[in-house]
Amino acid sequence: MTYTLYYSPGAASMAVHWMLIEMQLPFEAKLVSIDAGEQRSAEYLKLNPSGRIPTLMIDGAPRTESTALLMSLAERHPDKGLAPTPGSAARAEWLETMIYLANTVLPAMRDWFYAGKDGDPAGAEAVQALARRRIEGAWDLLDARLSDGRSHLVGHQLSTADLLGTMLMRWSRNMPRPADTWKNLAPYIRRMRSMPSFIELNRREGLTDWSN
Amino acid sequence: MTYTLYYSPGAASMAVHWMLIEMQLPFEAKLVSIDAGEQRSAEYLKLNPSGRIPTLMIDGAPRTESTALLMSLAERHPDKGLAPTPGSAARAEWLETMIYLANTVLPAMRDWFYAGKDGDPAGAEAVQALARRRIEGAWDLLDARLSDGRSHLVGHQLSTADLLGTMLMRWSRNMPRPADTWKNLAPYIRRMRSMPSFIELNRREGLTDWSN
Ligand SMILES: N[C@@H](CCC(=O)N[C@@H](CS)C(=O)NCC(=O)O)C(=O)O
Ligand SMILES: N[C@@H](CCC(=O)N[C@@H](CS)C(=O)NCC(=O)O)C(=O)O
Repeated sequence: MTYTLYYSPGAASMAVHWMLIEMQLPFEAKLVSIDAGEQRSAEYLKLNPSGRIPTLMIDGAPRTESTALLMSLAERHPDKGLAPTPGSAARAEWLETMIYLANTVLPAMRDWFYAGKDGDPAGAEAVQALARRRIEGAWDLLDARLSDGRSHLVGHQLSTADLLGTMLMRWSRNMPRPADTWKNLAPYIRRMRSMPSFIELNRREGLTDWSN
Repeated sequence: MTYTLYYSPGAASMAVHWMLIEMQLPFEAKLVSIDAGEQRSAEYLKLNPSGRIPTLMIDGAPRTESTALLMSLAERHPDKGLAPTPGSAARAEWLETMIYLANTVLPAMRDWFYAGKDGDPAGAEAVQALARRRIEGAWDLLDARLSDGRSHLVGHQLSTADLLGTMLMRWSRNMPRPADTWKNLAPYIRRMRSMPSFIELNRREGLTDWSN
């Protein structure tokens, strides 16, 4: 079972790319440059009709939605321990956290970066203002959660929620209030960025900013 | 293991309420009236600090996010068959569909109904215009998916994606273009609404519109 990941540096593919590296699984990474608009090529649209990054080939079928890909990979490789085991106490919290990130933070980020492209450019400022409020509200919430001294977003163990959460925090780096200006998020982010798999991810995607 | 669901008629609790009825599990339903603003009572905020409906008590702990609750319930009761088994071919598609609904449709619905409350009322119209575009785009996509003759959103079997999807389609009933004006969604909606558990759900929540 080999995976093929269609990615663009720094895009929503990043968390999935990170997970594949962290799990030390064999996979092929194919660059689809958003800067060059390659996500709208006829070839890519066959895999991903909405022209979004990432796509992951799972058992030969193209699958989308970064959050779902992280969850699929976690359950296909339970030995890697990137999600609490079904039935464990932490499991419901992990599911809740994944969905919170997918339902609140990810769409607000889409609004922040794509308001004028997804919708009427005249309305973009209003959409972005609401997006910013929601994103900062999410940092408040995640900061409060980490205030109990936990090392990771769900309990004391690395999970897919950290890969997704850290990617989203990275996206705020040029916003008026980046995530790493929150008291408990700052040391958390430093910790996540020190992971060898994160450093390797940045090397492979050619990213140099937002590192320790 | 008994569940307690905090719900408000017709709110995001509806899919979870439906699932509990469909699975014929013992549970207690506690009304938290949004019309009366009860989601902002001190008592409820202790369970759900963001004052949102639903909350489900799982093993004595309050859990939130309707999509996550459906997924938790599916995996706690695999014998009820409301999600494809882990490892099956349909599983990745189910995860993708659940996340698509949580990531695209649910937040756009929040924008449609709450733009002026969550954000600056002056910007509400712009936010709603984008929300409407995204919601109608989702109906296009789900309609196209059903065009292959499948009976349900994921393959040929009822899953949590149908409970979540149908609830979201119901929310469009007073929008300029309700979901049931799409060619393939119309018969799908009629089929879902004919389920005895859906009829019972409406009876218990005191809802009379949007029925067959
Ligand atoms: N919900 C999708 C969103 C993916 C998404 O919006 N990706 C962006 C990059 S971060 C993209 O493809 N942008 C290119 C475009 O929309 O043209 C996911 O989580 O995978
Ligand atoms: N992401 C949450 C959203 C829940 C939500 O927005 N619920 C609405 C009712 S549909 C609510 O609680 N509204 C009351 C309020 O925001 O004051 C979920 O899926 O459970």
